[in-house]
Amino acid sequence: MNVHGKPMRTIWLDSHDPTVIQIIDQQKLPFELAIMNATSVSEVATIIRDMHVRGAGLIGATAGYGMYLAALHAPKTDVDAFFTTLQTAGETLKATRPTAVNLAWAVQRQLDTLREHASAGASLSDLITHARMIANDIADEDADFCRRIGEHGLALIADIARQKDTQQKAAKQQGDTVNILTHCNAGWLAFVDYGSATAPIYAAFDAGIPIHVWVDETRPRNQGASLTAWELAEHGVPHTVIVDNAGGHLMQHGKVDMVIVGSDRTTYTGDVGNKIGTYLKALAAKDNGIPFYAALPSSTFDWALADGVTGTPIEERDPKEVTHIRGADETGIVRDVRLTPNVSAAANYGFDVTPRRLVTGLITERGVCEASAESILELYPEKREIVAANQEASEQEGNTRVVPSP
Amino acid sequence: MNVHGKPMRTIWLDSHDPTVIQIIDQQKLPFELAIMNATSVSEVATIIRDMHVRGAGLIGATAGYGMYLAALHAPKTDVDAFFTTLQTAGETLKATRPTAVNLAWAVQRQLDTLREHASAGASLSDLITHARMIANDIADEDADFCRRIGEHGLALIADIARQKDTQQKAAKQQGDTVNILTHCNAGWLAFVDYGSATAPIYAAFDAGIPIHVWVDETRPRNQGASLTAWELAEHGVPHTVIVDNAGGHLMQHGKVDMVIVGSDRTTYTGDVGNKIGTYLKALAAKDNGIPFYAALPSSTFDWALADGVTGTPIEERDPKEVTHIRGADETGIVRDVRLTPNVSAAANYGFDVTPRRLVTGLITERGVCEASAESILELYPEKREIVAANQEASEQEGNTRVVPSP
Repeated sequence: MNVHGKPMRTIWLDSHDPTVIQIIDQQKLPFELAIMNATSVSEVATIIRDMHVRGAGLIGATAGYGMYLAALHAPKTDVDAFFTTLQTAGETLKATRPTAVNLAWAVQRQLDTLREHASAGASLSDLITHARMIANDIADEDADFCRRIGEHGLALIADIARQKDTQQKAAKQQGDTVNILTHCNAGWLAFVDYGSATAPIYAAFDAGIPIHVWVDETRPRNQGASLTAWELAEHGVPHTVIVDNAGGHLMQHGKVDMVIVGSDRTTYTGDVGNKIGTYLKALAAKDNGIPFYAALPSSTFDWALADGVTGTPIEERDPKEVTHIRGADETGIVRDVRLTPNVSAAANYGFDVTPRRLVTGLITERGVCEASAESILELYPEKREIVAANQEASEQEGNTRVVPSP
Repeated sequence: MNVHGKPMRTIWLDSHDPTVIQIIDQQKLPFELAIMNATSVSEVATIIRDMHVRGAGLIGATAGYGMYLAALHAPKTDVDAFFTTLQTAGETLKATRPTAVNLAWAVQRQLDTLREHASAGASLSDLITHARMIANDIADEDADFCRRIGEHGLALIADIARQKDTQQKAAKQQGDTVNILTHCNAGWLAFVDYGSATAPIYAAFDAGIPIHVWVDETRPRNQGASLTAWELAEHGVPHTVIVDNAGGHLMQHGKVDMVIVGSDRTTYTGDVGNKIGTYLKALAAKDNGIPFYAALPSSTFDWALADGVTGTPIEERDPKEVTHIRGADETGIVRDVRLTPNVSAAANYGFDVTPRRLVTGLITERGVCEASAESILELYPEKREIVAANQEASEQEGNTRVVPSP
């Protein structure tokens, strides 16, 4: 999306030197737009581990480019040494965020595809070219999936805009702005471009539909206040930052027309795992008759998990993210400050799960579906078999699952 | 309650010099326990205006003591000049927080009672003594109401403790800790002593019931993280600070046995106006079958308002409370830091209203009742007449109300 009026992605190859990977350093946002370079696997590993990039899609794309750098600098003596180096690089990258499914998937895709090319007789020099193309493919596909999520979501927003327009013309009132509330950052900064929850928003904005976004600040890491607000501002989308506590009040008073969030893991039955606090917004949306959508690429689906509320592992993170916060002081210096008494303990649960009964629908790259196994599998019929196998295994053996490659 | 192991109130007369009022400077908490002195009405006005004291009960008590200082320093020439000075002082105090009902009430109580004493022939010197006694009475009554809220709430907590104990003995498990979630600071720092939401918690703790409190940090002003956490820590009550987003997840997973919040305004029908975000916790409590209580002295009831959701005025506060936050840096210096992009707007709604259908009960100084007009008026039968008059006025004239003195 646009930054300073020009299109930008979250990761790209330096146009002057394609041996250099460039990323937006998300640790510096919203206070500074800083570009980081990486020229080695260890630099890419640091970038992922220290969360200069974050978000499932972007972590996958970054790992893809990391494997390209591994190929670039691998020994050119023989194919075995080349692949041994790549294998080691893959382990290094996967260890940076062990629970990131897209990371392991991108590493494996590079390894598998390069081995196929090697078997077909590609030279080591060709393999480097292939590694670069695979990395670019991973990034392009991520962007393309998000773009399609945007198209499908745009139709939903356009419907709401038409309804509001009709109602307001009937009431002889001006203004048909569609107010959308979002939580956390499921924006283009979490992917390569467009984002998941934000893709329909950008599509609607670019199509000229008048929209306004309520941005939950999203404590404790404040991804809404720092990242979503920044990217909406850069693209020119009208928005207002609110504390996470405010959404219920806004919904009670007709100030929200639609909620769109992203997802970290959605069960094949439609339970939506997402940033902590999402469930509270879904409850308020339900209580006030407001549509609540989760937007996600299909890589987010867990085809083995039937009950998200009881079955989703919820990460407990460093309590310091609750007790301390980062901001810019009046001179612009970025500082961490402590919010709580020294002696008070804090707990930091990363995610919660919104039961499918509260979810109006899921916006995927293939279209919009209801939050139910039936409706999801209608969009993804090729997953029926793996889901059936998982169900059978689950019935027979309790917790055993067949975990499919994404 | 206890501070550094010794009982303390939020406001008191200096024991060495009863012409000096002392308060805990709540702007400095949790980083420093600082005591502020006030010896004049203008100092008291500053203390209230700049929120060195806050909370309905404490603001009322502070205004009561402010009127005592006004009497102390009023001209002793004649009664008219004395009361003119007091009247002016009352206006000064009321202007500091124009929407604080308890403030206006405390000022009026001083004026009315002193006029009665003057009519009965009290000397100016006697009137000063009376003003001090009235101020002490206001503070003592506030503390006594909270103490009684604590007693009534204690019975509810004891019931839950017994139920848990029985269940756990049946399951042959150890540990029967009652987990209570609270939002904002309805603690003793908001009153003179005990607090409203915290009064049952302190009563249970002091009675030896094993309890643990989940403290919502309560963005944007973070009264939970800075005030509730501090006072619980000082009294020794086990507690954990969480972000406002976490409560739903905790409730889904059986980690909350009860929610107790305070209230800024409760309708005579049982709708609970309280700090923004309360409604979201009430929704989650309802969704998970967890009892949700509001604890409040009867001065919080609005006997004229039937529909809290549509009728409660919701203060919109400075957006800077959302975009900026205060904390202590690593050297202990307290700083304000900015969290959002410079160009992003923010909105700051102070309160929301929890509809009575989500409220299990109200804990008042007279006992526990359901959140319904019928049940509330059973506890406060002397209000039946004013409520009936208000209902009639409201039916006849739309918005017209008879607003009773609290």
